[in-house]
Amino acid sequence: MAVTENEKVYFDSDYIAGAHPKVLARLAETNLEPLAGYGCDHYCDEAADKIRTACACPEAEVCFLTGGTQTNQIVISTMLAEYEGVVAAGTGHVSVHEAGAIEYTGHKVLELPAKDGKIEAGELRDFLENFYADGNHEHMVYPGMVYISYPTEYGTLYSKQELAEISRICGRYKIPLFIDGARLGYGLASKEADLTLPELAALCDVFYIGGTKVGALCGEAVVFTKNNMPKYFITQVKQHGALLAKGRLLGVQFDALFTDGLYMEISRHAIKMAELLKRIFREKGYEFFLESPTNQQFVILENQKMKELSQHVGFSFWEKYDEKHTVVRFATSWSTRAEDLEVLQAYL
Amino acid sequence: MAVTENEKVYFDSDYIAGAHPKVLARLAETNLEPLAGYGCDHYCDEAADKIRTACACPEAEVCFLTGGTQTNQIVISTMLAEYEGVVAAGTGHVSVHEAGAIEYTGHKVLELPAKDGKIEAGELRDFLENFYADGNHEHMVYPGMVYISYPTEYGTLYSKQELAEISRICGRYKIPLFIDGARLGYGLASKEADLTLPELAALCDVFYIGGTKVGALCGEAVVFTKNNMPKYFITQVKQHGALLAKGRLLGVQFDALFTDGLYMEISRHAIKMAELLKRIFREKGYEFFLESPTNQQFVILENQKMKELSQHVGFSFWEKYDEKHTVVRFATSWSTRAEDLEVLQAYL
Amino acid sequence: MAVTENEKVYFDSDYIAGAHPKVLARLAETNLEPLAGYGCDHYCDEAADKIRTACACPEAEVCFLTGGTQTNQIVISTMLAEYEGVVAAGTGHVSVHEAGAIEYTGHKVLELPAKDGKIEAGELRDFLENFYADGNHEHMVYPGMVYISYPTEYGTLYSKQELAEISRICGRYKIPLFIDGARLGYGLASKEADLTLPELAALCDVFYIGGTKVGALCGEAVVFTKNNMPKYFITQVKQHGALLAKGRLLGVQFDALFTDGLYMEISRHAIKMAELLKRIFREKGYEFFLESPTNQQFVILENQKMKELSQHVGFSFWEKYDEKHTVVRFATSWSTRAEDLEVLQAYL
Amino acid sequence: MAVTENEKVYFDSDYIAGAHPKVLARLAETNLEPLAGYGCDHYCDEAADKIRTACACPEAEVCFLTGGTQTNQIVISTMLAEYEGVVAAGTGHVSVHEAGAIEYTGHKVLELPAKDGKIEAGELRDFLENFYADGNHEHMVYPGMVYISYPTEYGTLYSKQELAEISRICGRYKIPLFIDGARLGYGLASKEADLTLPELAALCDVFYIGGTKVGALCGEAVVFTKNNMPKYFITQVKQHGALLAKGRLLGVQFDALFTDGLYMEISRHAIKMAELLKRIFREKGYEFFLESPTNQQFVILENQKMKELSQHVGFSFWEKYDEKHTVVRFATSWSTRAEDLEVLQAYL
Repeated sequence: MAVTENEKVYFDSDYIAGAHPKVLARLAETNLEPLAGYGCDHYCDEAADKIRTACACPEAEVCFLTGGTQTNQIVISTMLAEYEGVVAAGTGHVSVHEAGAIEYTGHKVLELPAKDGKIEAGELRDFLENFYADGNHEHMVYPGMVYISYPTEYGTLYSKQELAEISRICGRYKIPLFIDGARLGYGLASKEADLTLPELAALCDVFYIGGTKVGALCGEAVVFTKNNMPKYFITQVKQHGALLAKGRLLGVQFDALFTDGLYMEISRHAIKMAELLKRIFREKGYEFFLESPTNQQFVILENQKMKELSQHVGFSFWEKYDEKHTVVRFATSWSTRAEDLEVLQAYL
Repeated sequence: MAVTENEKVYFDSDYIAGAHPKVLARLAETNLEPLAGYGCDHYCDEAADKIRTACACPEAEVCFLTGGTQTNQIVISTMLAEYEGVVAAGTGHVSVHEAGAIEYTGHKVLELPAKDGKIEAGELRDFLENFYADGNHEHMVYPGMVYISYPTEYGTLYSKQELAEISRICGRYKIPLFIDGARLGYGLASKEADLTLPELAALCDVFYIGGTKVGALCGEAVVFTKNNMPKYFITQVKQHGALLAKGRLLGVQFDALFTDGLYMEISRHAIKMAELLKRIFREKGYEFFLESPTNQQFVILENQKMKELSQHVGFSFWEKYDEKHTVVRFATSWSTRAEDLEVLQAYL
Repeated sequence: MAVTENEKVYFDSDYIAGAHPKVLARLAETNLEPLAGYGCDHYCDEAADKIRTACACPEAEVCFLTGGTQTNQIVISTMLAEYEGVVAAGTGHVSVHEAGAIEYTGHKVLELPAKDGKIEAGELRDFLENFYADGNHEHMVYPGMVYISYPTEYGTLYSKQELAEISRICGRYKIPLFIDGARLGYGLASKEADLTLPELAALCDVFYIGGTKVGALCGEAVVFTKNNMPKYFITQVKQHGALLAKGRLLGVQFDALFTDGLYMEISRHAIKMAELLKRIFREKGYEFFLESPTNQQFVILENQKMKELSQHVGFSFWEKYDEKHTVVRFATSWSTRAEDLEVLQAYL
Repeated sequence: MAVTENEKVYFDSDYIAGAHPKVLARLAETNLEPLAGYGCDHYCDEAADKIRTACACPEAEVCFLTGGTQTNQIVISTMLAEYEGVVAAGTGHVSVHEAGAIEYTGHKVLELPAKDGKIEAGELRDFLENFYADGNHEHMVYPGMVYISYPTEYGTLYSKQELAEISRICGRYKIPLFIDGARLGYGLASKEADLTLPELAALCDVFYIGGTKVGALCGEAVVFTKNNMPKYFITQVKQHGALLAKGRLLGVQFDALFTDGLYMEISRHAIKMAELLKRIFREKGYEFFLESPTNQQFVILENQKMKELSQHVGFSFWEKYDEKHTVVRFATSWSTRAEDLEVLQAYL
């Protein structure tokens, strides 16, 4: 393929484009309809209904928030008691990349060692056992919730069995399991995923369905699966400065994403693009930093190659690998086109 | 005019519709352009430039946030020292209707008595003088900022002279003056307004230009007028859970609103509609709760009339007036149509 | 009486002296006994038992803290839900003189108008009724507790009937009533007091027995009357930085104060001294700012007289009365001596 | 030596006794002197002067607080900006045993790996370098202070050179170095200590001199060495609920501790007792968990032996060593007597 000068393609992140055209169209169609504010409109209701159906969780309570850090902050701080912290992987988004948003609300992130972004059920069990075994824990932060991400920040996935074990441990200690699904679609659509949305919903106490990275302009749908939405939740959302006057912006978008299976359809597309991308890199002999079955791919580039490639292809720095190599991330999304991959291939 | 059965018109609030069509069109045009995240895209830059120009404040720092309570919370908590509180009218939005969002960040709202939503310069001066006169103020919350809204929650406006006096007092005590401009356009477009956007910008230390209520789906543009944006502001926005991954959503909308004078144009339309609405009520002999020169009008309705009217016309409850009467609010906005007023008129 | 030059007497506050000699003696006697830390020693247990007996509240949970602001902060923040604030008199200590310690924990103080430091049951009922009547209260801070002080900051007292009414209203709205008893002994020992410690305990959900101002070096005994101590309270006390390693310091002092009726005995002495002081001022023709039946007396002094008197007698500035007069406070305490009053008398 | 039945000796902690007799005597002597409240009395002033002299730091600002966690919480939260966290050893008291008191104020503890309770200058430098090397650090918590303890929670000490290196790195990144001196005397009095109090003061920006564990009933003296006490510090102490009305309680005790070298004298006694204790264990063939040159000794006991010994000797559980052994801590202090060690020896 002949690559035109100046044609650059972008794999920098999964939030480089606006909304999926169908989502945008729905915003346009409904734009002038007069609606109640603060999430009390019928689009929010309908979107919540569709999500309950998709989760096979008819009793679930659904609330729409704007972004991922905001959702993590609000869910965690409203579900924890003051003396509790949240257990998370040391590499979890809440631990590292949210500017201390959890601590800002007064709660410690209790870090567990992570392997490829995941915590292990055994580590979690040992941590909880030791905590309560230690007679002195009155002077420590109580573990009040477990936070995991699906997929993780490294693109990896928990198996159904792994999730079930973590879920069982949480149940034994009566602490909720919270799944950060900022990229949930890209996890569920992966060939390696061995669980469905209803199965995931059944295994946790609260999770969110990421919209910002999966077809929306902004928006995350929080699902409380066990009739366990914190009391006066809307008031608490307001108290965090997170209640949109035009809640419709979120309701309409999620209504569109959960109509005719759009959410999973566009997620599958992103995964297909990621598989193609992997094949391209493999065929050219590149090495991966780790095996990711989802839309984020971590490739080890020789530094000079990285510099050259960056003229034509957008990607993001992840970490230094060694003196001569760097780990960089390529992300696909619903907006990635097969043509973009051809351009990438041409420059490798 | 013949009013069709079931035709209902809405004056419930100034956020019942989506975005102004030109704003939505701009979102659509730019939708698939790959852009950097977190407000680092060129639309955010251009919107900021246009705002600086409109404010005649070339050195201003501009940042986009999602909603009003969020903006108040972040501006106030990042500008105050820990031992400081914010001085505000007892009827101010931050005092009453933000679910304690300011206190949630650890700061007291120091309430001054309000008249029609406004504080008086004299009261403010006395409060500050007394605070520092009292030898015991080491055990009290230091006044660290003055918050006012323009227009106020009651639709009223400060005159240029009133603002200048308040500004001078703040200057004397070296505390910033923050103007909540959730409905800024509707204030500046009022016939009673005797100051311009540049004049307002010059009189305060920080203010915001409301988008949510003036043509945008969501979004407020914070303007730090004196090179006084708090250090690492973006990190602090993130820490509050308020940093949008797709910052473009805000940048593109404000870019549209500040192109070809759209923001003021649609604000003037809302004011024109409000003037018409006032005339209609006046001609029918209704009384107003107070004189409002902006887009919110507070009318005293006899309770039975209120009940009947609510079948055909949307408005919002404000407060009980007496046993037989109620104060209700009618809000116009950029989306109010002359036809809506005709329907209203027919039912009065 | 002949007053010696340089002999100055002090009525500045009720915390000008150290501990009552019996309290200090008890600290000395027990000083070298090895004891467990963090309030787990037998003196803390015994003091708690004696307090339960004195309150006729065998099920009460008792915890010792160091000072008044700390106690208010911890009791209020651990009993409120995140979306709740505390209702208090605008002149209440938590509203005005604690440097925003309540707001620092994220909670608003919802101020009611005060008369001589007291709130009225009717105002409280109206406030709560209006709050829940207003359909929009989802955007407001929920009233989650009522705080009153006994005696108030102005030395005044609630009657048993007044307390019972406030208690009944709290019960109806299912919010706890918290009584700040920083000067509790001086209230109960007043001739105007028409209730006993057990009666006060029965009318509220939590209160504290002030030690700092009534015979101790430091220390307040918090009494949760209804088996309602917040979960993991000790952990939360630690989290506030308020858990003393040598909890004995508080336990031993309260053990002494509640042995052989010492607490009430020394409280009665302070009241006797206050009555004497009042008589002296009255006989000399001075006017009082308000009628206080407890140990704090608010006298209106002519400014020149105030200046002269301050050479020989300590008191504290309260507020400006008019151009020529000032309100000052004289406080008696367990440490006030009859001789001190004679000196005062000589200089009036 | 014949050990009497029921005679038990205690090494559970360094806060099992009350105050050193000279400290208590001073409290008694000064008890009835009328003094100003809130730390404004002459004993506080004199104690501060003596501390400045002892630190050879004439410009230092000194403030007295009640306990260690409180001091850590207040110093850290008042010196950090909102977007900053404190760097500390993963085993540091602020990380593990303060019930989340730091996070409660909104700040993350950024944990570094610890060796025997100490962080290494190299690890600190790498951490800071990497933080600023990572282009993405806008989404992370800024390191705003370094916290170390001297001695550490494991009884170990930093050498002067180690401290100097850490201090140099802090200087380079312009972040303050804070030394937790809860057991400062026991560190400085150790034979292994190669630095003096003035040298320690010169190497850090703020530290505290522990009183609670070194002769006082309660109290820690915070020393800001570089004219860097946070603005309105007393107000902030009040806001944290930590301002004692009778500040004299702290001033008088520290005045006594810093009169005639009492603080170091009793510290040396505790170290002498610790050396004796070490020799006793060594001679009986016990193994130590680690080498501690200060007053806390960590001994590995066979479980059955531990059980028997605990009948006669108090000590505290530290951690499980293996299936058959446990690590326990023996603490000496100013109140440890040579006779106590003889009893211990008899039971080993």
